[in-house]
Amino acid sequence: MPDVFGRLSLNTMTTKGWTLRQAVEQTAAAGLPAIGLWRARVAEAGVEQAAKIVGDNGLRVSSLCRGGFLTGLDDHDAALEDNRRAIDEAAVLGASELVMVTGGMPDRDLVGARGRLADRLAELVPYAADHDVRLALEPLHPVFCADRAVISTLGQALDLAAPHPARTVGVVVDTYHVWWDPALAESVARAGAQGRISSYQVCDWLVPMAPDPLVSRGMMGDGIIDFSAIGTMVRDAGYAGDVEVEIFNETIWATNGVTVLETMKQRYRELVWPALDSPGADHSQTAE
Amino acid sequence: MPDVFGRLSLNTMTTKGWTLRQAVEQTAAAGLPAIGLWRARVAEAGVEQAAKIVGDNGLRVSSLCRGGFLTGLDDHDAALEDNRRAIDEAAVLGASELVMVTGGMPDRDLVGARGRLADRLAELVPYAADHDVRLALEPLHPVFCADRAVISTLGQALDLAAPHPARTVGVVVDTYHVWWDPALAESVARAGAQGRISSYQVCDWLVPMAPDPLVSRGMMGDGIIDFSAIGTMVRDAGYAGDVEVEIFNETIWATNGVTVLETMKQRYRELVWPALDSPGADHSQTAE
Repeated sequence: MPDVFGRLSLNTMTTKGWTLRQAVEQTAAAGLPAIGLWRARVAEAGVEQAAKIVGDNGLRVSSLCRGGFLTGLDDHDAALEDNRRAIDEAAVLGASELVMVTGGMPDRDLVGARGRLADRLAELVPYAADHDVRLALEPLHPVFCADRAVISTLGQALDLAAPHPARTVGVVVDTYHVWWDPALAESVARAGAQGRISSYQVCDWLVPMAPDPLVSRGMMGDGIIDFSAIGTMVRDAGYAGDVEVEIFNETIWATNGVTVLETMKQRYRELVWPALDSPGADHSQTAE
Repeated sequence: MPDVFGRLSLNTMTTKGWTLRQAVEQTAAAGLPAIGLWRARVAEAGVEQAAKIVGDNGLRVSSLCRGGFLTGLDDHDAALEDNRRAIDEAAVLGASELVMVTGGMPDRDLVGARGRLADRLAELVPYAADHDVRLALEPLHPVFCADRAVISTLGQALDLAAPHPARTVGVVVDTYHVWWDPALAESVARAGAQGRISSYQVCDWLVPMAPDPLVSRGMMGDGIIDFSAIGTMVRDAGYAGDVEVEIFNETIWATNGVTVLETMKQRYRELVWPALDSPGADHSQTAE
């Protein structure tokens, strides 16, 4: 019998009130095998100490969030340097996937911003390759195109990744960002065929939205996303890695973390896992 | 010398506080040739009377907003009937373009909603053709996919239009909805090549957004949209029709309408018109 929770990972942003140690220990206590880390949380503990805490609790690091913000006009060196530090940290943490939030528009020139992004990504790739860290390009929902990420679709992320090896540049499939995309099935299949799916992240799209779209993410089942449909695409694309739950939501942040973890496990079992586990699902990852 | 304002149209939503008569008379007094009407505004005056007011003031009706909302589960007959009434009204008003806001998701089945939309569009096409009214499919920004329009990109709108004649099913290019799309240039060109551009609507994307994305539209120049870039695409695609300014914005709605019209003309002249007027622009429409 497959382990229902054998691929489930808590992203530390979901239980924002917890320290790194609390998040790691509670994740392990809940029987989950992996955790997704944000750099600020890691920095509070110190990178080496964070790696030790994770290791002592027997967890995998499913991803490190985040590098990126490579679209600025005047911060070329600083942006690259910060990304190299993120790569260093990922390497110390044993995180093979560094999530890249690519950056928004410093002016009205969207094409220019996308061009700078491509150039700076190319500058980072050798450093990432040297450290065995994959730059996981995350397309963000187009509502964030101006202020956070000029990459808005999975297809666009794959085009940006194309010049680089799949082991060094991947893509993130985050349900919150991609659910609306009419080309989603085709793009997920393409990502899988190229071996570029770095991470599958799940949370729901709430209706109505919160006033700030950044914190309008919901627990799976609380919104309109069909996790069965998207999970099937991801499974059929051959993805067998961890499934991270990353939720920005003021109500969830105000809730006791243990309760959040329990709800998350229940919703994952009901809504996310069945599609991943259907015939055709590859459990090799869970046996590691 | 080309007439700077020879294609500029006020959408009645921009000066929401005005009655139909006020909007028409002020538009004419401002030297604009066209107006875009919302059905509720028309209904206040009565359709026949509205047509007379517009005609007496020598304006074109650049579009009628809106038909659509064709994705419901249980309202098939009522939705079609309402759309037939919208087509009737467009015909009486001499509006060749009926803007279609296609409708959102009544449940989690996005593919199903898109399928119902395609089916019901097909049912409406003969009626629209009989009345010489074009159904102008409007892709809405993906932030509205759940609650307003399951059509999120121009390419997707063109795919939906494809089975139908270009004279009966067109597409709307509204800068607020399409500016982020990495495939925009290609899709605008495709729309133009097919003769399907029903309307070019302009307003800006504000950063930060208003808490409700519906009313986060801004006056051109107040946000991050490059009207020169998109205007050039639309011009190069051969579009020579009216350019509607449609802004949902609480601050603008609280401003005196005459002031709004003046600002709109100034921003149009500075930011929108130059790209439309560059070499290659077709002024045939302005000579009508």
